[in-house]
Amino acid sequence: MSATAPTSEAGAAAPTPQARVPVDLAANSYDILIGPGLIAGAGATLAERFPDRRFAVITDTTVAEHHLDALAASLTDAGLGYSTIVVTPGEGSKSFSVFESVVDGVLSARLERGDLLVALGGGVIGDLTGFVAGVVRRGMRFVQMPTTLLSQVDSSVGGKTGINTRHGKNLVGVFHQPALVIADTATLDTLDARDFRAGYAEVAKYGLIDDAEFFGWLETNWREVFSGGTARVEAIARCCRAKARVVKIDEKEAGPRALLNLGHTFGHALESITHYDAERLVHGEGVAIGMVLAHEFSVRMNLCSPDDLARMRAHLVEVGLPTRLSEIPGDIGSADDLMAAILQDKKVKRGRLTFILTRGLGASFIADDVPPEAVRAFLADKLTERVAA
Amino acid sequence: MSATAPTSEAGAAAPTPQARVPVDLAANSYDILIGPGLIAGAGATLAERFPDRRFAVITDTTVAEHHLDALAASLTDAGLGYSTIVVTPGEGSKSFSVFESVVDGVLSARLERGDLLVALGGGVIGDLTGFVAGVVRRGMRFVQMPTTLLSQVDSSVGGKTGINTRHGKNLVGVFHQPALVIADTATLDTLDARDFRAGYAEVAKYGLIDDAEFFGWLETNWREVFSGGTARVEAIARCCRAKARVVKIDEKEAGPRALLNLGHTFGHALESITHYDAERLVHGEGVAIGMVLAHEFSVRMNLCSPDDLARMRAHLVEVGLPTRLSEIPGDIGSADDLMAAILQDKKVKRGRLTFILTRGLGASFIADDVPPEAVRAFLADKLTERVAA
Repeated sequence: MSATAPTSEAGAAAPTPQARVPVDLAANSYDILIGPGLIAGAGATLAERFPDRRFAVITDTTVAEHHLDALAASLTDAGLGYSTIVVTPGEGSKSFSVFESVVDGVLSARLERGDLLVALGGGVIGDLTGFVAGVVRRGMRFVQMPTTLLSQVDSSVGGKTGINTRHGKNLVGVFHQPALVIADTATLDTLDARDFRAGYAEVAKYGLIDDAEFFGWLETNWREVFSGGTARVEAIARCCRAKARVVKIDEKEAGPRALLNLGHTFGHALESITHYDAERLVHGEGVAIGMVLAHEFSVRMNLCSPDDLARMRAHLVEVGLPTRLSEIPGDIGSADDLMAAILQDKKVKRGRLTFILTRGLGASFIADDVPPEAVRAFLADKLTERVAA
Repeated sequence: MSATAPTSEAGAAAPTPQARVPVDLAANSYDILIGPGLIAGAGATLAERFPDRRFAVITDTTVAEHHLDALAASLTDAGLGYSTIVVTPGEGSKSFSVFESVVDGVLSARLERGDLLVALGGGVIGDLTGFVAGVVRRGMRFVQMPTTLLSQVDSSVGGKTGINTRHGKNLVGVFHQPALVIADTATLDTLDARDFRAGYAEVAKYGLIDDAEFFGWLETNWREVFSGGTARVEAIARCCRAKARVVKIDEKEAGPRALLNLGHTFGHALESITHYDAERLVHGEGVAIGMVLAHEFSVRMNLCSPDDLARMRAHLVEVGLPTRLSEIPGDIGSADDLMAAILQDKKVKRGRLTFILTRGLGASFIADDVPPEAVRAFLADKLTERVAA
């Protein structure tokens, strides 16, 4: 793509993305630009939208290897000044110490209040950069340039930022909306198959929450989403639109935004119990298993039909995602251990559990006050099945 | 005070404060309660306003010695559950490492989203606690219980929170409004005279900004403000009302809120150059000297009459505040060093300086685009005077 016309100024005209999703949040509104090749034109896009600003690009060594040269060339072509801060890849960088060092890097770069950070990478880079942007000088603007499927459909949209603590994931952060999201869908071709699949769990989630038609579309078109092409852009744009709708009515997650957590209460507990060890389980895999558990628990509560459970599981299996606790290697503790991890989740109030349950495919709902004992018993049974498997 | 009537519930009725200043910020509105002895009734006040909540009290060892027993007894009497986190006194606690340890303490206390932090102490405790509250679980509520004059009139009001970095003071933080401020004016009797005087610089500031009548009232009544009594409550309430008015129209300091920085650009530079060493200079002393410098610079720019400068300086001298660079012990660097400190301030945009200057007593204004060279030459002259002094 990148239909760039030469201009009389430095650099080329901003490229036209294949899709643009506006996120309508009053003073915090922003656009999500989606399409292949957008990084090559990012300098022109940023120069057009944020004239006379300086930038600090925050990325990790893996992403830098694939995409930093293209972004740097594009910024230089557009005549933009920038600094680069490169961190170690992986969840470990969502730590207090990396947070402190990135803050120090931003301040050393002498960025001022009107300047912008650019998060070039996956969810870790986006969450970390967003948090840094949210607190340096009590709030700087930032641009998300997500390079994974997970971050293009989920973590780069909606303004949740944060780092992890020994008590759990994302327990420290702020709500801070990006000023722009540039999702270059060609970057997904550099992902390994496992990471792409993990991100796809969040894509399927949008169907399972409230859009059975989209889930059906995915059952038909998932191969093209994986291989690239217009179905990929369409799938990402649909997810972003769905998330934008929810975030618009509930920016700070006081209510319906919780639906986006389908599969996440179980998923986070599984990530916690496996110590965020990406060798054993990555976020999207936890969400895939978590969504299946949410459907199984809903079947057990006579809320959801076994057929809908079977259909959603079959699709996740077809694309190659794990759907059973037995697929997690190593020890995952007892039902009590999992319950302890669940109870430390941000979504717990006074020991009462809020779960996203479902009445069928695309019919998820927020269930307040789920009896912890029922969840514990359910998990104990699942763990028994795991041992038997 | 503390007209407490026994009730049928646990604890006593909430005490009636001598003054209540509402801060009107739509969804973020809150009250400032002011009067002697309010800590003894704080449990009842909190139980009434935040029923069924748990609390984590964050304080320092010095403040704990004077006031923690009274607060703890009051919380216990009111049947409230609480944890206590005690840090080292002083500016050094506004650090990344203490921030991390307080976050850890709050999470270890198993507070949930609806629960509250309580900042019992001066500006350091308030800024640190407010920042922790602003980021734990992406935002918890907190109560300010300021125990210094400075924090009662300034830092506990308005929602600025933050910690320091090696690049400067308060460069990392969020805007996060407290849910309530309880200013027990009797706590000021435990301050040493120097700290009280330093806080008084911020009291005088409210007169110098835009209220010549209040400045005149202070010239008459300052002794009673220092000794305690109704003039103290009145002075604090007037300062809080003035700050609340400004914060209401400009919560995030996009415009007129900058007036509150009268004396602070110079003052912060002096704090920075003395390495925040409280032996040499505390914040209020930096502000006192900074306000005099702002008036002197305004006189030099033919904006302010020398008589108004003489009058404001005379009052600060009368109460015992420093007003000259020569009163700062030790080396304070060159004019270039001070300029470098000024240029790292948050208020700098593209190297253009925004200063609060004045056209006379109570006639301060925001001056954009002050020529840096004029400031440098002015500081060079002041430093020469200092050496001569």
